[in-house]
Amino acid sequence: MSEPSNRGRPRGLSDRVREDVHAAVRRLLVAEGYAAMRLEDVAAAAGVHKSTLYRQWATKAQLVRDVLVAGELEHYPRVDEGSLAADVEALVQGLTRLFRSPTTVAFVQTRATADDPELRAGLHELARQDTAFMRLPFERAIARGELPPDTDVGMLVELLLSPLLARVALTGSPVDDEFSRRLAGTFTALVAPHAAIGP
Amino acid sequence: MSEPSNRGRPRGLSDRVREDVHAAVRRLLVAEGYAAMRLEDVAAAAGVHKSTLYRQWATKAQLVRDVLVAGELEHYPRVDEGSLAADVEALVQGLTRLFRSPTTVAFVQTRATADDPELRAGLHELARQDTAFMRLPFERAIARGELPPDTDVGMLVELLLSPLLARVALTGSPVDDEFSRRLAGTFTALVAPHAAIGP
Repeated sequence: MSEPSNRGRPRGLSDRVREDVHAAVRRLLVAEGYAAMRLEDVAAAAGVHKSTLYRQWATKAQLVRDVLVAGELEHYPRVDEGSLAADVEALVQGLTRLFRSPTTVAFVQTRATADDPELRAGLHELARQDTAFMRLPFERAIARGELPPDTDVGMLVELLLSPLLARVALTGSPVDDEFSRRLAGTFTALVAPHAAIGP
Repeated sequence: MSEPSNRGRPRGLSDRVREDVHAAVRRLLVAEGYAAMRLEDVAAAAGVHKSTLYRQWATKAQLVRDVLVAGELEHYPRVDEGSLAADVEALVQGLTRLFRSPTTVAFVQTRATADDPELRAGLHELARQDTAFMRLPFERAIARGELPPDTDVGMLVELLLSPLLARVALTGSPVDDEFSRRLAGTFTALVAPHAAIGP
């Protein structure tokens, strides 16, 4: 594929320009939050004309939703360690790393505080996509006979993810090594009580 | 105890005035949210002079924190059904009722969106108090031998509560009967796999 030119009203953005715009949005969300961020600032930080942004994204909400979808899906941990206990360990470690990054914290807090219906709808869609692949370790565990066939996989995913979301969005309690260890330990003991963990 | 007069700079507020002020704060938090709520509006809604409020609460954050502490602690479910499975069922039913009320939703969203450090500190204190008595069903289960002695009770409480907090503060997913049934069912199956549930 040839990269479209940035001049003369291209249909899409080049990968490089898109990356610059996404990086600018992430920086500004961390620094200022969703409400204060202006498309003018994004354009200036990314070194593009504001009209370039508006050709791709009609509103700030659409731009932020695209960045959130791209950024979050890219960084969510994908694990396949061969057993439910090891998968839960790896999943919690990956999620803890993810929820420690200032970008993710800014994203979660944008979800909690944004009152833009379009953005919220996009974030619900994002949450559904996250859930889809976080189901896999539990579905494999059912296939292996480590969990009963009637396990409510969606609720397990929600139980595992919600403490991280609640700490970052609500309580401000730290997402540190101790929390990661306790969450992994308790969740593993609950879902895989008879499985050996680690060496 | 004699009720102090509302005239002539009383040291404290009468129970009735305090109830009126708390009710006004709850109504205004639901209707307008923390950021938009003004002490003038609280005073007008409660039928007291603004100076009466300022004698008791130096800031809006202090007033809201007091109301949240009083309101939340009063309505959190206290359960003692004789078994871990029955306690979890009752706890989830009580929490679901609590998290469906517009007042609680407004409180949780205030916690998520308030950027006042004093208010946040008060809400952390509140969260610790909540946790303290939600530990009891699990501590009784340890004493009865239904849970291992080294169970991380604090993490169990956080796992049970966080899906409710995340739905209300973040994802906007409904806290409905289906959710309540799924949360109780999955959590009970995890913590009390061998216990009988219900009749």
